[in-house]
Amino acid sequence: MSAVLSNNAGFVAWRSLQQERVEQALSAWVSADAPAGLGEAMRYAVLDGGKRLRPLLALAACEAVQGDAAAAMRAACAVELIHAYSLVHDDMPCMDNDVLRRGKPTVHVQFGEAQALLAGDALQALAFELLVPDDGSMAGTLSARLCRQLAQAAGAAGMAGGQAVDLASVGIALDRPALEAMHRLKTGALLQASVMMGVSTATVDAAVQAHLSAYGACLGLAFQVVDDILDVTTDSATLGKTAGKDAASDKPTFVSLMGLAQAQAYADQVLDQAHGALTASGLAHTDTLHALADWVGRRVS
Amino acid sequence: MSAVLSNNAGFVAWRSLQQERVEQALSAWVSADAPAGLGEAMRYAVLDGGKRLRPLLALAACEAVQGDAAAAMRAACAVELIHAYSLVHDDMPCMDNDVLRRGKPTVHVQFGEAQALLAGDALQALAFELLVPDDGSMAGTLSARLCRQLAQAAGAAGMAGGQAVDLASVGIALDRPALEAMHRLKTGALLQASVMMGVSTATVDAAVQAHLSAYGACLGLAFQVVDDILDVTTDSATLGKTAGKDAASDKPTFVSLMGLAQAQAYADQVLDQAHGALTASGLAHTDTLHALADWVGRRVS
Repeated sequence: MSAVLSNNAGFVAWRSLQQERVEQALSAWVSADAPAGLGEAMRYAVLDGGKRLRPLLALAACEAVQGDAAAAMRAACAVELIHAYSLVHDDMPCMDNDVLRRGKPTVHVQFGEAQALLAGDALQALAFELLVPDDGSMAGTLSARLCRQLAQAAGAAGMAGGQAVDLASVGIALDRPALEAMHRLKTGALLQASVMMGVSTATVDAAVQAHLSAYGACLGLAFQVVDDILDVTTDSATLGKTAGKDAASDKPTFVSLMGLAQAQAYADQVLDQAHGALTASGLAHTDTLHALADWVGRRVS
Repeated sequence: MSAVLSNNAGFVAWRSLQQERVEQALSAWVSADAPAGLGEAMRYAVLDGGKRLRPLLALAACEAVQGDAAAAMRAACAVELIHAYSLVHDDMPCMDNDVLRRGKPTVHVQFGEAQALLAGDALQALAFELLVPDDGSMAGTLSARLCRQLAQAAGAAGMAGGQAVDLASVGIALDRPALEAMHRLKTGALLQASVMMGVSTATVDAAVQAHLSAYGACLGLAFQVVDDILDVTTDSATLGKTAGKDAASDKPTFVSLMGLAQAQAYADQVLDQAHGALTASGLAHTDTLHALADWVGRRVS
């Protein structure tokens, strides 16, 4: 079933269209006007034709709940800016010291470390700014809710906290629960927030929210398991980033813990749970969310 | 007049009380629970008994407009978290490479560069999180407005942009308008936002807002002129940070541009403008804001 969903012509067309819309929105919102080359560095970090998984999740979740599409586009771009800033900082010499990202020199290689640090900082601020338009287009309560979801997912109890655990785990034999707990923070929180910020653009009852939240959690976990698989099965050119770096840096992964075949089986199992949570939501318009789960699970880069 | 105001016993007592309240609020909100030592690094960066100028401005502005005191305390701590994160990142080797801050080793010296980077990132997220409590204590429209003011002051059109200009200005002969434009972004935007976020906790007519905004702008400029004066007139032990570093790093300052005596006269002139703007607001409860302006202008560290 899965391969069919993400290869479905309707989904492929939807994805291309939304990727293009997200690219245009990001290009409009991340201004080149910021002084002293800062805007250029910010745009370089963001406008790289990435997969835009997080924005697509926000937009598809909005469709599933028939929410406010304009608000969802702001949410979609806000989560992408948080993701983009985290990559900029994560690539810096004091963190992963990576020189290649999506096939291009990383931001600090291109613009210097100081500018990369500032560009990341400014992108985080801009993410929140997108959620609080001053043109009256978004109710204050919705703005506040989206800011809360984003701040919690990005901060010490989310992404930043997960990165701290990741740093501290090099060379340590984490067991699977500990590895999952780390990834739930490091990548899972923002992926789940992408879904739930899309959901927040409509009024949805708590039970449906819980199913969509479970979908987001499963998708986040599947994303990471597949990431670990691709790190050992795919070359750098295909990935657009340095392959094999988990093993090289002695970091625990699902593959190092379970072996390749078991990790693949686990990814499939978690994806099934994601599909199951969507079905359990009882919502009518979840085809795109189903297809996105398969897209995450079947991706090759 | 000025010296009298900031030495006034009532102001000194108010300042001590509010500094203590801010310290307690920050201690409660910056949790040690963040994983893998991140919470510890965040608390180290924030809970250092700083002067808390930005929080005091927000609280005093709230008093001046008779606003919502609980909301003002959240705003006060949010601006302080942005300030604290900017110091952590600014001190890093790729930026100012400073090892001493408020008399203590800087965060990256104490916890390593990677943890310092993450602690700064997490503090920025937490700043926004403080403005969107989920306990119903703040109206969504107020949360959204405070987030907007903070994001604009912290981002590419504010603090981060000013830092980019600062980086680019080393060894360049800026004239006074260019130097002021840089500082208006780098330090002025957040100081002015501190005032205006306090103002946002009440409904205030546009003319009064404009006067308070002018007060914030003048105070921000005076702060920087005095900072440049202290950098050449005061030793590191008194400053709690490395003195003389502007000259050492060949950065333009008001002192290098105007000379010491002229810079002092200019600080006095700008402070007079700050007092004048407060008087022009016609508000009854501006004694503390007046005293804070003098505190900034007459400080010795």
